[in-house]
Amino acid sequence: MKHDSGRLLLVVDIAGTFLFGMEGAAAAIRGNLDLLGLLVLAFSTALAGGVVRDVLIGAVPPEAIRNWRYAVTAFAAATITFFFYRMVQAFPVQLLMILDAGGLASFAVAGTEKALDFKIHPFMAALLGTITGVGGGTIRDIFLAHVPRVLQSDIYATAALAGAVVLIALRKLGLSPMVAACAGGGSCFVLRVVAATLHWNLPKIANP
Amino acid sequence: MKHDSGRLLLVVDIAGTFLFGMEGAAAAIRGNLDLLGLLVLAFSTALAGGVVRDVLIGAVPPEAIRNWRYAVTAFAAATITFFFYRMVQAFPVQLLMILDAGGLASFAVAGTEKALDFKIHPFMAALLGTITGVGGGTIRDIFLAHVPRVLQSDIYATAALAGAVVLIALRKLGLSPMVAACAGGGSCFVLRVVAATLHWNLPKIANP
Amino acid sequence: MKHDSGRLLLVVDIAGTFLFGMEGAAAAIRGNLDLLGLLVLAFSTALAGGVVRDVLIGAVPPEAIRNWRYAVTAFAAATITFFFYRMVQAFPVQLLMILDAGGLASFAVAGTEKALDFKIHPFMAALLGTITGVGGGTIRDIFLAHVPRVLQSDIYATAALAGAVVLIALRKLGLSPMVAACAGGGSCFVLRVVAATLHWNLPKIANP
Repeated sequence: MKHDSGRLLLVVDIAGTFLFGMEGAAAAIRGNLDLLGLLVLAFSTALAGGVVRDVLIGAVPPEAIRNWRYAVTAFAAATITFFFYRMVQAFPVQLLMILDAGGLASFAVAGTEKALDFKIHPFMAALLGTITGVGGGTIRDIFLAHVPRVLQSDIYATAALAGAVVLIALRKLGLSPMVAACAGGGSCFVLRVVAATLHWNLPKIANP
Repeated sequence: MKHDSGRLLLVVDIAGTFLFGMEGAAAAIRGNLDLLGLLVLAFSTALAGGVVRDVLIGAVPPEAIRNWRYAVTAFAAATITFFFYRMVQAFPVQLLMILDAGGLASFAVAGTEKALDFKIHPFMAALLGTITGVGGGTIRDIFLAHVPRVLQSDIYATAALAGAVVLIALRKLGLSPMVAACAGGGSCFVLRVVAATLHWNLPKIANP
Repeated sequence: MKHDSGRLLLVVDIAGTFLFGMEGAAAAIRGNLDLLGLLVLAFSTALAGGVVRDVLIGAVPPEAIRNWRYAVTAFAAATITFFFYRMVQAFPVQLLMILDAGGLASFAVAGTEKALDFKIHPFMAALLGTITGVGGGTIRDIFLAHVPRVLQSDIYATAALAGAVVLIALRKLGLSPMVAACAGGGSCFVLRVVAATLHWNLPKIANP
């Protein structure tokens, strides 16, 4: 049972890495980068959030450096995006948003749990879970010399943070880690999908 | 006595974090970011310099991750800036510059001392003190897709570096750490205030 | 013999740091930065790739922080570029490209070897060697708010990666580390020089 859930988690992690890798590679193509740029942006988008988390909690070498499977997954996503870009582009936007919300939820939950395992204070663990979910996309945008989109609009990092907070609150209330993880991930997923569908945004101050 | 100076240092550190957090949040508003962007830029501006220093000297988790009070302070600064932006804007520019010079001086001194505590060579400790003072603003500018201002004009990082050098020189001459810290911080503060008032700049090569 | 090769390696390392430092300082001048900006970009271009590698493999403080000779070399390169910019500009482009290819090769080889020494999987060690070679220039471009050039065109990171792969393949085949290093570095150097001379580029997807 334990073994099966471990395997399931790995599958979810690799699937999220693949999906975020494809998104990074597609952003590289739109940014007019070459094949190497695709590989770098696929790796960064999929894995840089977790790398930053691991460096900050002292888990070095980071998992994405220690385990070559992550890099291979991101590079496979980049290669497939390179050769089948038309098919990737034809992917329905709604479905992509829903899959992406699933990836965000699983990264935020996994990141929060790892920070807690390393004895980080719950408040900071929630922030580190959020960084795990959105750090990769942030670094992708910096490579493309854009202001990171996650800082400008949408309920995206906010959904990751909400999921992390739910996870931590339920653990504090004494629920099992598995239940807390599912509820946290579910909260992140639902909030992200609803917010994207209804075009919710965080408040912003009109800039005179 | 020792206890009191420790408490004073913490108060100065938290005050500097709050001030730099407000400056980061105000930059986020000017950059048209949303509320999450304010929180991220407040945290980065106030704390990223120290985070980079701690990662480089091997003090992980960095203090700003280990101690949740720093993040809470930066987020409080962002929230207040969000709700009272008009009042923040109305703050006299001269006074803000003087307070900022105080924050810069305290960060540069604290960063240099921490690097020395971790057995870093004095020459590199001075650089790490400078990074502590100006690293946050540099990362804020990168998030905003600007060339970091500190690299372009003003005597700002230079003041931090000068303060760090004075601190180290006086320690080498055998003065007490407390005297060296006060003289180093004072040098940074005075140089920054005088340079800002008289519009001093570092030399630059005319770009043909 | 061993001693002599150690001394040779240090000379090559310092020479590469000086060359990359001059390139960073020249980029800072073209980007209209002030003297402090020159120092920062010289340090970043020459040393940030190695700093990132060391942080990722857990070798903290990174060599460029631990050993002040690297920073002094980069700052000397920046200072010389500042005072003799016309002479630096008059340097023949072909020769500069060839020297730069030598620096790239030595950084990529040294970075790959250090990652292997830290028990990193060979596949990831090749990536870390590449980061050692091109990470500094990437961070320089981010400071200048440009999309990193290495992601857009040229066979540059690709040459570093090819050299790292050759090094690792020959070690796996049982050749001595010295032979593997020379062959890896040579491959990187030759591929870079030929590609730059013949204007080779990686494939890119036309952006509709």
